[in-house]
Amino acid sequence: MKSLQQSFTVTFNYTVHFTENLFDPQNPTFRSVLRDDGHAGERKLFFVVDSGVHQATPALLGDIHAYAAAQPGAFQLSGEPLIVPGGEGAKNDPGLVERILEAVNTHGIDRHSYLVAIGGGAVLDMVGYAAAVAHRGVRHIRVPTTVLSQNDSGVGVKNGINAFNKKNFLGTFAPPYAVLNDFAFLRTLHERDWRAGIAEAIKVALIKDAAFYRFIKENAKALNHREMPAMQQLIHRCAQMHLQHIAGRDPFETGSSRPLDFGHWAAHKLEQLTHYSLRHGEAVAIGMALDTTYSYLSGRLPRAEWKDVMDTLRDLGFKLFVPELAQNLDTPANSVLKGLSEFREHLGGQLTIMLLDRIGHGVEVHEMDQAHLLQSIQALEKEFMSLGVDE
Amino acid sequence: MKSLQQSFTVTFNYTVHFTENLFDPQNPTFRSVLRDDGHAGERKLFFVVDSGVHQATPALLGDIHAYAAAQPGAFQLSGEPLIVPGGEGAKNDPGLVERILEAVNTHGIDRHSYLVAIGGGAVLDMVGYAAAVAHRGVRHIRVPTTVLSQNDSGVGVKNGINAFNKKNFLGTFAPPYAVLNDFAFLRTLHERDWRAGIAEAIKVALIKDAAFYRFIKENAKALNHREMPAMQQLIHRCAQMHLQHIAGRDPFETGSSRPLDFGHWAAHKLEQLTHYSLRHGEAVAIGMALDTTYSYLSGRLPRAEWKDVMDTLRDLGFKLFVPELAQNLDTPANSVLKGLSEFREHLGGQLTIMLLDRIGHGVEVHEMDQAHLLQSIQALEKEFMSLGVDE
Repeated sequence: MKSLQQSFTVTFNYTVHFTENLFDPQNPTFRSVLRDDGHAGERKLFFVVDSGVHQATPALLGDIHAYAAAQPGAFQLSGEPLIVPGGEGAKNDPGLVERILEAVNTHGIDRHSYLVAIGGGAVLDMVGYAAAVAHRGVRHIRVPTTVLSQNDSGVGVKNGINAFNKKNFLGTFAPPYAVLNDFAFLRTLHERDWRAGIAEAIKVALIKDAAFYRFIKENAKALNHREMPAMQQLIHRCAQMHLQHIAGRDPFETGSSRPLDFGHWAAHKLEQLTHYSLRHGEAVAIGMALDTTYSYLSGRLPRAEWKDVMDTLRDLGFKLFVPELAQNLDTPANSVLKGLSEFREHLGGQLTIMLLDRIGHGVEVHEMDQAHLLQSIQALEKEFMSLGVDE
Repeated sequence: MKSLQQSFTVTFNYTVHFTENLFDPQNPTFRSVLRDDGHAGERKLFFVVDSGVHQATPALLGDIHAYAAAQPGAFQLSGEPLIVPGGEGAKNDPGLVERILEAVNTHGIDRHSYLVAIGGGAVLDMVGYAAAVAHRGVRHIRVPTTVLSQNDSGVGVKNGINAFNKKNFLGTFAPPYAVLNDFAFLRTLHERDWRAGIAEAIKVALIKDAAFYRFIKENAKALNHREMPAMQQLIHRCAQMHLQHIAGRDPFETGSSRPLDFGHWAAHKLEQLTHYSLRHGEAVAIGMALDTTYSYLSGRLPRAEWKDVMDTLRDLGFKLFVPELAQNLDTPANSVLKGLSEFREHLGGQLTIMLLDRIGHGVEVHEMDQAHLLQSIQALEKEFMSLGVDE
């Protein structure tokens, strides 16, 4: 009996908006996103808010209520916003997803209602996961509040939580309904979070766009001084490149290639080895320093370009070494080297690592030479010592 | 600052194969599905088996091992197959998904490995859900073993488990990697399951294909006598129409329309009201009888066609009434009528119900008239009484 061949195409659309003071009653952004959904009458919205944002912006909950009250008949707040812990803790506690699902059930949030998440990348990842599996997907609006989530994870299509001590063990690919980037939240960020978010912009610049790399390098001082115009440009360009990359080839990552994960195999492992005392972006900066040094020592990247990258990373205030990077290298299973096999397992199939052959141009390889890798770690450690940088 | 508009398309492909004795070492089907994945070397496979199938086919586990042993270097069984309860119980116990995820972790099943489910629709739904969320989706092969799963749910793109006492509260849209329909499993089915699976074929015929309806009507006796050729044709055509429907318009159901859910608003509720003592297909038969009668009484469907459908359903041995259908009609929240609002909530947005204006042609409406609905229930009850059918 003849086989049946199924084939169909699904188109995904969403808009990333940039604004300030999203919940100012005069701000049309949120209102217009809802209006464009084509439905008449009131829509239900349930909000989940990162506890860090809640603390840093005490007026936020009141502002949300006032904004809703100013759009009568359109914007129905279903229950009080749920405050959840920010940071990686949001992704380590399965009880939080459960609480959001309970709220979806209690408030009758359906596939045409909205689950809105306000927070950093971890909270967005966790709420996005709940939104993706409730009723096979309720509408999910993201309001990223950190540099990292506004320019990278928050504008993308992935969600996830950790399980079995593995990052993002549970998750799906589920495009958001919309992303609302509110720059005003950035003013409340801790200096470490402001800086850490720049790492993903450097990453995408290094592998794809030399001009963007030069922009970041030339604006290092402005970024260090927390000048908003420079940061807004950086976020807009980084978000744009992230979106273009997703749309480009393999949005739901069915292959083994993951070009945007430059520096990430070591970063993921270092986050775990430091018990998440490193921010993701701080770990990515170290991971990029490592893979850039490896690119140089293995003969791919010219010395001058290697030095340029290392100087720029340092100018931006990143530390390029932590003791965990050099720990247990003689027992690879307990060292950063284990990150390579874990990275392969998470991708599935063949190991694929991005290196640089020049600034603005990444190249994929399928193995890393252990001797050059150890040499690269030593180089970072030695420089760290010689700079006399304290931990 | 200018908004960024994201837009991309994803193409999904999979094949539904028809075979007998899938795990006969001479059968090339499974082997060729793996070979076509383009990878060299061994692939990991983890199997989950419906306890009902395991009991009815005691040789199955041995056959799987023998099949794997006959494909050295290609087919690596990761751990012993996990036996899980069949039927709705599989979807009501969150611990089962947890056990499968543990196995995925323990055996290092990655995005290029396979999670294979063998069983009825409920087990496929549950394993499919686990496969969809582990590592953001590991490859999922379905081996449906019932009429219903071979011609309908098992070839589609949905998975799910129940939560908060609601059917499919948790789930995703996630196309399988492949579907392997093995007709040999059908011989072991209980008579009720053989018959119940026919309901979805009648459903798709009634709303879309008068010729297929006539085929089913003319083959009622053969189907009752469990003649394989008639059933194989029925399954093949029903699966084909199901696949075409998915590919046609809105594969991931972003709208409020759900044409294939003819008869299902009442069916879902009756399954719950009968504490799942009704099979899904048995409930769908009652739901179709109800909505066909409503189509007639509300002036859409000619009397002769209404009678034709009722006769065909009865000829196939379906009961068209259960006492739960007429219970508590004066307190709608405790009656089948609640199924309408629950159906709307699950779809989201506007209520959309499929009715018939002729055999082979469905028409969507957005409300149901309560008087005609009660009259339809009474008609089914009266006929049930007059036929003197025992429960």
